[in-house]
Amino acid sequence: MAKGLLIVLSGPSGVGKGTVCNELRARMPKLVYSVSATTRHPRLGEENGVNYFFKSREQFMEMIEKDQLLEYAEYVGNYYGTPRDFVEETLESGRDIILEIEVQGALKVKEKFPEGVFVFLLPPSLDELKDRIQGRGTENQATIDHRMSVAADEMRLLEQYDYAVVNDEIDHACRRIEAIITAEHCKVRKPADI
Amino acid sequence: MAKGLLIVLSGPSGVGKGTVCNELRARMPKLVYSVSATTRHPRLGEENGVNYFFKSREQFMEMIEKDQLLEYAEYVGNYYGTPRDFVEETLESGRDIILEIEVQGALKVKEKFPEGVFVFLLPPSLDELKDRIQGRGTENQATIDHRMSVAADEMRLLEQYDYAVVNDEIDHACRRIEAIITAEHCKVRKPADI
Repeated sequence: MAKGLLIVLSGPSGVGKGTVCNELRARMPKLVYSVSATTRHPRLGEENGVNYFFKSREQFMEMIEKDQLLEYAEYVGNYYGTPRDFVEETLESGRDIILEIEVQGALKVKEKFPEGVFVFLLPPSLDELKDRIQGRGTENQATIDHRMSVAADEMRLLEQYDYAVVNDEIDHACRRIEAIITAEHCKVRKPADI
Repeated sequence: MAKGLLIVLSGPSGVGKGTVCNELRARMPKLVYSVSATTRHPRLGEENGVNYFFKSREQFMEMIEKDQLLEYAEYVGNYYGTPRDFVEETLESGRDIILEIEVQGALKVKEKFPEGVFVFLLPPSLDELKDRIQGRGTENQATIDHRMSVAADEMRLLEQYDYAVVNDEIDHACRRIEAIITAEHCKVRKPADI
């Protein structure tokens, strides 16, 4: 059986990765979602094991030591990581899995899974991104400024990705990502890829 | 302005390239169609300048000598070729152009346009392909046998293409090709590609 595709959906903080990812999961019920581990506190409505595996810092460090994370990164004071086994088992079973992940983490995944499909979600503009980061209303000004500076740096990493999708409207963005997944399944695998 | 995409739709004789290409043109009115030149006689309903530019052998040889063809090939006793200027002008204007072409011709185009998107249309099976070639009802048995042998050889060239699309149902095949075109427009252009 052919292995599944690893689809990595990334992009700067505030671009709408989570919203697009949730919409994709609703449209593509067979698409498996990789649940990340994190040390950050749950936001309103977030559930352990559904949105994230919420871990203490001590638990997270233990996962790192036992090599149970495909990648991990510190971001704005919290750790985020991808449990390795679940991703590998899903791919081996022939199902596609989507990882919603920040930019640094995605590039670490790329080192281990260069055959993954790396999609960078773009804001329509940097001004639009600032509005979205401010609109979340959960951060103070210093955090907002820091996020904007990080986002600008992250945009420069776009060229390490396979695809760029503008998140102008969620429906358009999802259609493009669905097309990318369909197209990747039609790709001819060259001997060098196998 | 970004250049358009050259989409090359190929596959063995009888696989349904023409039917799929016509359906794609109906669905994607902005997609420009590259009209080939040929020395073969028009089939019922085919119009000069719409389906092909029908040329005498002398006229075709003159186009070759004047380097007016992007590629040409002899196939079952007739010549087929792609007028060069129209393709290049369409791409420069930022529009996508589709070329429906037999397998040998497609690989010659690839030498000149490696950045093209090469799609190989597959029959659901070789038996199905035989049915389709016989079903056309315009050829004698020797021609059918020759076509089947050529088709089997052509299938081996699949790995030189970017995408493989099974023509199981025309709607499914067209959706996959539309997805490929959408995905290709989202591709991040690496410095090496430019």
